[in-house]
Amino acid sequence: MPSASASRKTQEKPREVMDAVEDYAKERYGVSSMIQSQEKSDRVLVRVSDLTVQKADEVVWVRARVHTSRAKGKQCFLVLRQQQFNVQALVAVGDHASKQMVKFAANINKESIVDVEGVVRKVNQKIGSCTQQDVELHVQKIYVISLAEPRLPLQLDDAIRPEVEGEEEGRATVNQDTRLDNRVIDLRTSTSQAVFRLQSGICHLFRETLINKGFVEIQTPKIISAASEGGANVFTVSYFKNNAYLAQSPQLYKQMCICADFEKVFCIGPVFRAEDSNTHRHLTEFVGLDIEMAFNYHYHEVVEEIADTLVQIFKGLQERFQTEIQTVNKQFPCEPFKFLEPTLRLEYCEALAMLREAGIEMGDEEDLSTPNEKLLGRLVKEKYDTDFYILDKYPLAVRPFYTMPDPRNSKQSNSYDMFMRGEEILSGAQRIHDPQLLTERALHHGIDLEKIKAYIDSFRFGAPPHAGGGIGLERVTMLFLGLHNIRQTSMFPRDPKRLTP
Amino acid sequence: MPSASASRKTQEKPREVMDAVEDYAKERYGVSSMIQSQEKSDRVLVRVSDLTVQKADEVVWVRARVHTSRAKGKQCFLVLRQQQFNVQALVAVGDHASKQMVKFAANINKESIVDVEGVVRKVNQKIGSCTQQDVELHVQKIYVISLAEPRLPLQLDDAIRPEVEGEEEGRATVNQDTRLDNRVIDLRTSTSQAVFRLQSGICHLFRETLINKGFVEIQTPKIISAASEGGANVFTVSYFKNNAYLAQSPQLYKQMCICADFEKVFCIGPVFRAEDSNTHRHLTEFVGLDIEMAFNYHYHEVVEEIADTLVQIFKGLQERFQTEIQTVNKQFPCEPFKFLEPTLRLEYCEALAMLREAGIEMGDEEDLSTPNEKLLGRLVKEKYDTDFYILDKYPLAVRPFYTMPDPRNSKQSNSYDMFMRGEEILSGAQRIHDPQLLTERALHHGIDLEKIKAYIDSFRFGAPPHAGGGIGLERVTMLFLGLHNIRQTSMFPRDPKRLTP
Repeated sequence: MPSASASRKTQEKPREVMDAVEDYAKERYGVSSMIQSQEKSDRVLVRVSDLTVQKADEVVWVRARVHTSRAKGKQCFLVLRQQQFNVQALVAVGDHASKQMVKFAANINKESIVDVEGVVRKVNQKIGSCTQQDVELHVQKIYVISLAEPRLPLQLDDAIRPEVEGEEEGRATVNQDTRLDNRVIDLRTSTSQAVFRLQSGICHLFRETLINKGFVEIQTPKIISAASEGGANVFTVSYFKNNAYLAQSPQLYKQMCICADFEKVFCIGPVFRAEDSNTHRHLTEFVGLDIEMAFNYHYHEVVEEIADTLVQIFKGLQERFQTEIQTVNKQFPCEPFKFLEPTLRLEYCEALAMLREAGIEMGDEEDLSTPNEKLLGRLVKEKYDTDFYILDKYPLAVRPFYTMPDPRNSKQSNSYDMFMRGEEILSGAQRIHDPQLLTERALHHGIDLEKIKAYIDSFRFGAPPHAGGGIGLERVTMLFLGLHNIRQTSMFPRDPKRLTP
Repeated sequence: MPSASASRKTQEKPREVMDAVEDYAKERYGVSSMIQSQEKSDRVLVRVSDLTVQKADEVVWVRARVHTSRAKGKQCFLVLRQQQFNVQALVAVGDHASKQMVKFAANINKESIVDVEGVVRKVNQKIGSCTQQDVELHVQKIYVISLAEPRLPLQLDDAIRPEVEGEEEGRATVNQDTRLDNRVIDLRTSTSQAVFRLQSGICHLFRETLINKGFVEIQTPKIISAASEGGANVFTVSYFKNNAYLAQSPQLYKQMCICADFEKVFCIGPVFRAEDSNTHRHLTEFVGLDIEMAFNYHYHEVVEEIADTLVQIFKGLQERFQTEIQTVNKQFPCEPFKFLEPTLRLEYCEALAMLREAGIEMGDEEDLSTPNEKLLGRLVKEKYDTDFYILDKYPLAVRPFYTMPDPRNSKQSNSYDMFMRGEEILSGAQRIHDPQLLTERALHHGIDLEKIKAYIDSFRFGAPPHAGGGIGLERVTMLFLGLHNIRQTSMFPRDPKRLTP
């Protein structure tokens, strides 16, 4: 408690303050001793976001960071920040503050955490630079709770500056490696706070929707004994005296849960890809939002559930996270995300026709390249005015061995991708639930049956028809907000060149 | 669709059926062709749990597994199972069923999935062996949707037999390795269905409670560059041309989020421990429910939030999962889980006194052994009538270097464990948020400062006091239900000897 440690506080004041014996405010400021849970306190700390005209003339305690400070004669203006919110505070020589106290306040290092007692005062002119525009805090006491070092590796104001403005005006912005190397500070910006609060909301909306639909959450192992789909792009783990692997997806386990009668399952967890891809949208570790579901007669029953789940997420974000969306838009301007109800579903051959009409040459059984994916997104947006759509009936040749062939066209399959702003966010399919057909298709793909024996055996004791898909959380966050690099939507991203922090 | 594939069905009927040219019911049964999403259907499939007297005399379609079948003259009784629910079905020679159809039904392999059309009939005497006791289904059509192989590696009825009964009567039970080797079938039992539905509920209640308290969900990386706490018990991963490690806990990242102003965070994810422990309660990969929270003046603010979260989980389970609890109790009888509000909090020295009174010799700075932990649980239950309590103020010597020392007693620390039925489910503490003290404590523990530089640096730019803890999901499930092995509450458990399925 600040009040309990006056002697230590005094010791830590700068020498010139010590010399000023006549300081009548000396008990009203200082560096507090480390909070080690010395004693409990009834003191109520008010949230910065609650500092409004309703609290005018009240005396309140606030804990916040010193965002900026500016001394001006006998006054010092502080901006106190708490997450996305900030308020102006004034320390002025008078009854409560001495000259020394103003100087102390002006010298507190930026990003330090302070406890401030002050009176909430209505202001005549709105304070444009703060979220709390109608009031300021007239400081009566100020104690440093945690002192930041004087030199910050990056400036928060630089970190939230729109890049265009930075380039145009020659003002500093912060490059990505500096941000990621100093992530603890970069995550404090209003933009980062908004991005990751919205991301937490995506997970919440995903689960809320699925639990309401009767899905069960499962937990699947990440350490696996065999690299299932051929063994490419898998990380190897030393497991006691043997080797094991990190799961590239929970698919096998989701499917086993369907064979074990859980009927509709989902899971959220890390997914690992040992791909040496250094692009704007690949990570070596990302978060998968996975769905698997038994259906009755047609895999579109599942496609509709997945699409509806995504629509519920989009709606929920637009309803509950408007502040966060607008905060991110200030730094990264972007059109609002558009979607249709029901979701637009195109067949692969229709997409091919659209691309060919736009001058692209592609074979019937050729997969979409990244540029063609993006072009298709633009064509779809022009024609249908949606940023979200389903591409159904992929060529069988470009999908994994466990994909159910289309019974009406042997070159097609019951598989689909979903796209946001022209980039893939989900890949899925009806899975083969018949062990005999699964064996045939694995052999056709040249897969060693011995390695997938346990997988095939899962279907030998009665398996319902089922389909599913996996969504990349970081991609959904990035594309919903119209950001351009997946490292902006992963708190601690992992790529071939980055393993820290 | 069954009706669309009469010719294939006919081909797949046993030869003797083929010979019986006079079969007047031949379109009413058979093996359906594989559901490959040939066409959509408006047919409504009714849930087995909805087959009650309210539906008496209605004709319904049901998809379910053949749990058992028993032919008896011109009749065949089937038990149809859907997850935890089952109903009796009767195929009897008459207008709808021929002799051949009864024989076909009687010969369907157990665990096969069938589509059945039947009339719901009220029964005069309750059917004690089924969950739907007041009705049976009079079958008019039956098609096999997915045929199980004839020999099952384990019998579901054996798998749910209480062990005592098995031993007493000499009837078969199923040992753990057989269960785990054939997990897809073992997970179909009513007990497994209940265990994992309840586990899904624990995750849901955990998040629901924390989101209501204003916590933000975070995602933390599992692949890390340095083995933080000394490097013992860490799995090594080959990461392109270097080595990396699997995170033993998300703690560092949770703390970084606190330093980054997220204030209250939680995460659910896999945790990896390369310990060669072959006990009833250790896994090499388990699911951590992790909490970290900034506090104002005393770490008990956090302890109370965590304890309340667990209490909300216990209450929610007892309110929403009574059916599941009772289902598990049938196989594994157990006293209901008891807890107090507010949660009992004992200090370590009080626990020592209780143990010493019970004849145990222990030093003041000695950690609790597993037997002493269990004994303490029994003593606490006797004295306070609770299965859940907090043990606070552990000796500093037995806790990690980042644990905040108690300011009033240099041999104690601001740390705590929480226990269910005498076993630890959570370990936590106030963390040191001051880089200087953290450095001192790391040196005292002989830790190489170079290896934890990034960790210590996280606290250099202003860090709020904070505390947290990690909960083991499988342990909470096991101990709440009074089970005795953690492999019962992990769908696909990993231990030093098991990596499959």
